[in-house]
Amino acid sequence: MKNFKLTIQYDGTRYCGWQTQPIRGGARKRSIQQTINRCLREIVHEKVNVFASGRTDSGVHASGQVVHCKTNAAFSAQKLRRALNGVLPRDIRVSGAEEVGLTFHAQYSATGKAYRYYIQQEEQPAPFLNKYSYWSKFSLNVRLMKEGAYFLVGRHDFASFCASGSAVGDTVRTIKRISITTTRIFSCRVVCIEIEGDGFLYNMVRNIVGTLLDVGRGRISPQSMRGILKRKDRAAAGQCVPAKGLFLLRVNYK
Amino acid sequence: MKNFKLTIQYDGTRYCGWQTQPIRGGARKRSIQQTINRCLREIVHEKVNVFASGRTDSGVHASGQVVHCKTNAAFSAQKLRRALNGVLPRDIRVSGAEEVGLTFHAQYSATGKAYRYYIQQEEQPAPFLNKYSYWSKFSLNVRLMKEGAYFLVGRHDFASFCASGSAVGDTVRTIKRISITTTRIFSCRVVCIEIEGDGFLYNMVRNIVGTLLDVGRGRISPQSMRGILKRKDRAAAGQCVPAKGLFLLRVNYK
Repeated sequence: MKNFKLTIQYDGTRYCGWQTQPIRGGARKRSIQQTINRCLREIVHEKVNVFASGRTDSGVHASGQVVHCKTNAAFSAQKLRRALNGVLPRDIRVSGAEEVGLTFHAQYSATGKAYRYYIQQEEQPAPFLNKYSYWSKFSLNVRLMKEGAYFLVGRHDFASFCASGSAVGDTVRTIKRISITTTRIFSCRVVCIEIEGDGFLYNMVRNIVGTLLDVGRGRISPQSMRGILKRKDRAAAGQCVPAKGLFLLRVNYK
Repeated sequence: MKNFKLTIQYDGTRYCGWQTQPIRGGARKRSIQQTINRCLREIVHEKVNVFASGRTDSGVHASGQVVHCKTNAAFSAQKLRRALNGVLPRDIRVSGAEEVGLTFHAQYSATGKAYRYYIQQEEQPAPFLNKYSYWSKFSLNVRLMKEGAYFLVGRHDFASFCASGSAVGDTVRTIKRISITTTRIFSCRVVCIEIEGDGFLYNMVRNIVGTLLDVGRGRISPQSMRGILKRKDRAAAGQCVPAKGLFLLRVNYK
């Protein structure tokens, strides 16, 4: 038996997220996991299940999701990568593959993750970025946003930024780094927020970005981030920004 | 009567190009011009026709196309812009609007244009860039491409870079500037070629980019650009690269 670590990129637009979710009524979108499993089965001729570093929600993209899968097939990592890219739909790609020890687990071996969120700063939402960014009608002050982000870096109880109703017990996490930069994508001004940490609560990145937006537009002061953390109440923080602006950038391992 | 100059952005993927083209058999895609005309009519309650600085082919995008339209409606430029954005599909946006003199013509008043072409430099084509760039499997040497581009800048007969079968008489044009840069878009390495000139022959930008790709991958020398220009024969130059990587960036006026 071999264990493969695969790095995956996907455009989450067409999918219900990483994992299949039961939806009441209406057409059910396919999941990314389901799609990869089906393609793997075509190649290795046995039932294979891929495990990801973590789930991503419907509409969230990944430029560096990591998964592992175990198979008895006598493939090399590079042959498996090429074969998979031959059968996967064009909005899912395997960008890297290597054989790893049998104890490697995409989720449990991970030591941290980095996410990126893109916010458009144009008067009109640009057609090319609709699916990959959130358009804010407010002109954002990046200096204030950086000041606000400063209070979040370090080991804190992030209960205020955890989706309400989430069943998780321990809400203490460590954010290693938040970088906020401005760039141009297809000639459009974009603010890019990158957050790296040892782990993230459900919707934590999107809730942090929504709160930093409040700082950037001058609705709250950068210093109020401290009070929001202290209250440990989801209602204290800002809105949860849309999934489509979020990219899982990288998963770290030892 | 008022004359409005509008700056338009569009994602060309779903359209047959700027202008409606008769296609033998099959479903006919809508044109961008047709779509804007229809939306304008809804707003000003009279038949209006928009004229562009030039046509763009099916799949070509624009981040700065310029059009003009004349109407008897008593709209201000900003009100027209907002109203149009309210009814246009999301892949077409009006990013700027101003009232101009009645003699202004989007095509005939233009003094030049700039185009941009995006080439992906990743081992696998990234899902997020499929519609907005061309994926080249070759690793491109940007230094060589810049050397090759140097020979094209200035006033030359660009017959070798004009689509064969094109009915245009005079094939002399002036290229003011070609800049070739590397950047990252959604974490993917991209080579970006920007060309500015006083006017362009049919497929000229895409034929130039295809020839610069041959230089970048080492198939021909940078110096051979001189010979290709001299031959005045489309067969001398490289392939015409796909429309989807091309953006009309800007139209210049006095």
